[in-house]
Amino acid sequence: MLTVILPDGSQKQFDRAVSSYDVAADIGAGLAKAAVLAEVDGQQRDLHAPLPADGEIKLRLLTKKDAEALAVMRHSAAHVMAQAVMRLFEGVQLAFGPTTATGFYYDFALRRPISEEDFPKIEAEIQKIVKADERFERLDVSREEALKLCRELGQEFKVEHIETGLAEEKTLSFYRQGEFVDLCRGRHIPSTRFIGPAVKLLSVAGAYWKGDATKQQLQRLYATAFFDKQELDAHLAQIEEAKRRDHRVLGKQLELFTISQTVGSGLILWLPKGAIIRQTLEEYIKDELRRRGYDAVYTPNVGRVELYEISGHFPYYSDSQFPPIEFKDGERYLLKPMNCPHHIMIYQSKPRSYRDLPVRLAEFGTVYRFEQSGELNGMTRVRGFTQDDAHIFCTEEQVADEFRSCLEMTQTVLSSLGMHDYRVRLGFRDPKSDKYVGASELWDRAEAALLEVCKSANLPNMTIEPGEAAFYGPKADFVVTDCIGRECQLGTVQLDYNLPSPERFGLEYIGADNHPHRPVMIHRAPLGSMERFVGVLIEHFAGAFPLWLAPEQVRVLTVSEKSEPYGREVEQQLKAAGLRTSGDYRGIKLSPKIRDAQVGLISYMFVVGEKDRDAHTVTVRDRIDGDLGPMPLSAAIEKLLTEIAAKTVRQTVARRAPAIADAQSHNEY
Amino acid sequence: MLTVILPDGSQKQFDRAVSSYDVAADIGAGLAKAAVLAEVDGQQRDLHAPLPADGEIKLRLLTKKDAEALAVMRHSAAHVMAQAVMRLFEGVQLAFGPTTATGFYYDFALRRPISEEDFPKIEAEIQKIVKADERFERLDVSREEALKLCRELGQEFKVEHIETGLAEEKTLSFYRQGEFVDLCRGRHIPSTRFIGPAVKLLSVAGAYWKGDATKQQLQRLYATAFFDKQELDAHLAQIEEAKRRDHRVLGKQLELFTISQTVGSGLILWLPKGAIIRQTLEEYIKDELRRRGYDAVYTPNVGRVELYEISGHFPYYSDSQFPPIEFKDGERYLLKPMNCPHHIMIYQSKPRSYRDLPVRLAEFGTVYRFEQSGELNGMTRVRGFTQDDAHIFCTEEQVADEFRSCLEMTQTVLSSLGMHDYRVRLGFRDPKSDKYVGASELWDRAEAALLEVCKSANLPNMTIEPGEAAFYGPKADFVVTDCIGRECQLGTVQLDYNLPSPERFGLEYIGADNHPHRPVMIHRAPLGSMERFVGVLIEHFAGAFPLWLAPEQVRVLTVSEKSEPYGREVEQQLKAAGLRTSGDYRGIKLSPKIRDAQVGLISYMFVVGEKDRDAHTVTVRDRIDGDLGPMPLSAAIEKLLTEIAAKTVRQTVARRAPAIADAQSHNEY
Repeated sequence: MLTVILPDGSQKQFDRAVSSYDVAADIGAGLAKAAVLAEVDGQQRDLHAPLPADGEIKLRLLTKKDAEALAVMRHSAAHVMAQAVMRLFEGVQLAFGPTTATGFYYDFALRRPISEEDFPKIEAEIQKIVKADERFERLDVSREEALKLCRELGQEFKVEHIETGLAEEKTLSFYRQGEFVDLCRGRHIPSTRFIGPAVKLLSVAGAYWKGDATKQQLQRLYATAFFDKQELDAHLAQIEEAKRRDHRVLGKQLELFTISQTVGSGLILWLPKGAIIRQTLEEYIKDELRRRGYDAVYTPNVGRVELYEISGHFPYYSDSQFPPIEFKDGERYLLKPMNCPHHIMIYQSKPRSYRDLPVRLAEFGTVYRFEQSGELNGMTRVRGFTQDDAHIFCTEEQVADEFRSCLEMTQTVLSSLGMHDYRVRLGFRDPKSDKYVGASELWDRAEAALLEVCKSANLPNMTIEPGEAAFYGPKADFVVTDCIGRECQLGTVQLDYNLPSPERFGLEYIGADNHPHRPVMIHRAPLGSMERFVGVLIEHFAGAFPLWLAPEQVRVLTVSEKSEPYGREVEQQLKAAGLRTSGDYRGIKLSPKIRDAQVGLISYMFVVGEKDRDAHTVTVRDRIDGDLGPMPLSAAIEKLLTEIAAKTVRQTVARRAPAIADAQSHNEY
Repeated sequence: MLTVILPDGSQKQFDRAVSSYDVAADIGAGLAKAAVLAEVDGQQRDLHAPLPADGEIKLRLLTKKDAEALAVMRHSAAHVMAQAVMRLFEGVQLAFGPTTATGFYYDFALRRPISEEDFPKIEAEIQKIVKADERFERLDVSREEALKLCRELGQEFKVEHIETGLAEEKTLSFYRQGEFVDLCRGRHIPSTRFIGPAVKLLSVAGAYWKGDATKQQLQRLYATAFFDKQELDAHLAQIEEAKRRDHRVLGKQLELFTISQTVGSGLILWLPKGAIIRQTLEEYIKDELRRRGYDAVYTPNVGRVELYEISGHFPYYSDSQFPPIEFKDGERYLLKPMNCPHHIMIYQSKPRSYRDLPVRLAEFGTVYRFEQSGELNGMTRVRGFTQDDAHIFCTEEQVADEFRSCLEMTQTVLSSLGMHDYRVRLGFRDPKSDKYVGASELWDRAEAALLEVCKSANLPNMTIEPGEAAFYGPKADFVVTDCIGRECQLGTVQLDYNLPSPERFGLEYIGADNHPHRPVMIHRAPLGSMERFVGVLIEHFAGAFPLWLAPEQVRVLTVSEKSEPYGREVEQQLKAAGLRTSGDYRGIKLSPKIRDAQVGLISYMFVVGEKDRDAHTVTVRDRIDGDLGPMPLSAAIEKLLTEIAAKTVRQTVARRAPAIADAQSHNEY
């Protein structure tokens, strides 16, 4: 006898073998038709999987309305897409087909490559399968049978995966819909009709078998699916919006940065206009640092390998580093992957007393890490970047105040950039794990202090994530949602009990008791890296930077050639006021000059004609609000200077869409 | 019959074999006694060397008063020092004993090392030899005889040098005074008495045979000699003054920078106080760059080796570079030894028109060069340094204006740092050499233009040095004399016809004629490198920086503990006014607080007592002028801000001594 407890507490009893579907049917035909997935004792199960014959279970039946159902439907859609591709292409070898945060993909080896022109045909074939309402059937088999089946199917990747990746498994599962069979852990929806019409192929890209560049190259077909057509449309519109804001495209168009293959992939060359944005941000951060009692330092971009052996960054992280520079005499240097060891050398350059603490050392430190070329992406994933870095060395008692001050600085900086939509992710340790450095009591005290600080800090949104601490200490990450709804991690504040420890650098200060004590270290970077942050800013503002950051703040446009002398006088006065400006004195009509300035995303245009010269006025044109009419030149300059001093953000707000993380789910086997 | 023409035009005739000494004796006994050296037809000759029997010669007899005589006397003194060492030490192997710009040294291999305690004994022995008035005799011998002689003398280094370094020479010369014989090209003074009493041993240091660290280690004994005791005293005082100003000592004492062996030799870690000076200088330079129409850029610290193969910097200069970073797949990156190739990539990132020129790209670019460890010296000879670099890309017609503007900027910068004593060294090509890139006419035009610019630029002092151009173009170096009379090369402006050429990067712009043209490149750096410049500045100011650069500008000193609250209020107001300040609130007397501030070279002290609180005043103390009496706080702040804005330099002027170059004469054989 099986007792089924439903979410509302009601119970049902069965003395025959039933599946979750049967329970749904027992409740009502409507639910049976709508149910997509089951949750049995908190675990997701296929709707048609048999339930135990005896005992008591908690059962939740999921429909399209439940968020968990979407990912399962997308995974099923990946199988259907593979089925469609196999029908349309010859000799298809299947690799993996997992879901992503916003859709799914499948990797194939093909005789003839897929191109975007094939998409409509594949989409039509998918819809045929959807309409045929093929049921997803699960087959559990032994390893030997699984190997036999894959060999019969001629699927070499699956054979290899069973032999290597799944060598430990005794039984394996397959799913079948129609003529299509795939090695798969599951789960799946009951049948293809649940996929519905809102399936869209997005792009095709190169990939490698198991992500290994030395292995066979594959084609990765990206797609997405929604239960609801409107949600798909919103998502496609967001993708379009993201394309429009793509910092790689805008960076080229607005001449902000360039990458040269002769210099190297992932190495940013900041063009003059991009450098203005960076320099302005750096000057702003420097002012904040001065106000907050930080000391600037400068350290070299290299260090002897020994330094990183002490810090533990070498050879532990050498996969993500440029290899050492090796001299014939055996001396080796590393391009610094982070600034902390250098700052520690400065801390250790003289004896420290408790009276000196906190020591706050700040540097725009350029570091180098070797990202795989497939992971590189414009300014946001690079091989060289400059952190707005600082390290605080303080007593345990000072940790809470210093942490608070770091949070405040990050909040101030983000809000002055118009980034009001963010959450703070508090990464705490997993108390069950032993991977952490430092005594338990230390962690408990530190986490309690951080939590207290965060609660009192008036943070808009805060999540505690146990197990997400670094091994060396708890941390707080700022996860910003940009104006088209995408999340990205920017600023960070991290405590460190590792580097100060005797096993590493053995940092000390002399306490009031005249005895040596161990300081705590805090790593913090409000922007994270200048490259990544400016990349994100470009997309956030779609290239239309707030006035205080804009490379060109105001352009002088002459109505006719006669106005050029006055135009140049206006330009000179703007420059003298410290404004970044240029003049368009071409002998053409005004309207194309305005259009060029609009396209160039110039915030203000000062239009000057004959009358303006006599009245010493300009006609102010606002990129967003249009013509503001004539104004005395001095008043117009004052208006701009006020907007700059206030760091006003006047961006046009884009469509908001559901949040997308840039993480990707693990491969299903 | 020999006819001798003297400098005054008078002639003497001799029908017997004579030396220059005989001519001097013929003129008068006084001259014969005073003559040190002869100049025969413009060539220096030993005074006792025989003159030709026939013909006509121009003869100049040199005495102690002639500058050329000093170097020859010092070289003779080096022989005498070696003779003294051989008398006092056993088993002395002689290496080389050349003169330097300010003295001489001799390298020895010794069984027992020389220490400073041996100096008086050696100096006494030198004076014995001087008083014995030993004559310097020259012996010209064949290579075989020379080898035989050196073997007999047991001088292994000399044997090796004849066999390797002098393998091409057929006849060699030796000089002998008393029992001492040395392989030597000459010239020498007639006898040891001319050396006189003003000989001083200075220091002893390690060296390697032929400067090669893989070869035998030697002891280098530094010394100097003057004809005049007062000149020696002035020189020794200058050495003392230089020691007092040594930037390595002051840098540690004032906590400006440190070097960590764990990070690596020659790599500067800028401590907070040093970083303030650098940051203030950088901000000043950035303002100047903005005013002068430069565009800031940022480029990475590495580039693919291919980039430097195009530029020609690799492998040509690889001896002075960190070795490449090598990946397993064969890709190689170089720590950038200069910024030009990166800036060229930015120039080439889009097509350029004549309307875009001049393009002026500026960067505080950190570069790495591998100096030999023996050449490293604090901040002034390092392995990593940040250039205040810029590259100008312009048309040929624009070269003169751009060059003028570069000179002006360097002049402005140097004078705002109180460096008014400098000369500009114009390095032109040697018209007889073919090592230069670019057509002759181009060089002629460029050199004429530069000369014209320099003449009109109101430069205090200018020298033209043919043959001193870089192979890629003519240049102007600023050679600054610091306040103790030492010369050092800082800023530079260089034209470059090489990198833009088709053999290198093939730079182009589209001219008004719609055809491609080749731009000229200008490299310029007013300070040179931040490390070297700040190192020189520390010595120039003996650590007492002008107010606008001073790490701590004013210190608040309380008269008693009761004044602390008001003291802190004053400190806050100073900070609010943007002044760099601290407070000394210790419960001790005022006088040690003043002493500490004086020792710390703090420009101003604001002393506050009870009366000051009520009157809202401070008693201003000037580090140089002492007590300035009470002043309203606001007026005192205003006084400092005015001094900062004016970049006033109020340094104490040190004793001036004759100029010393840091170059070293070539080794005599």
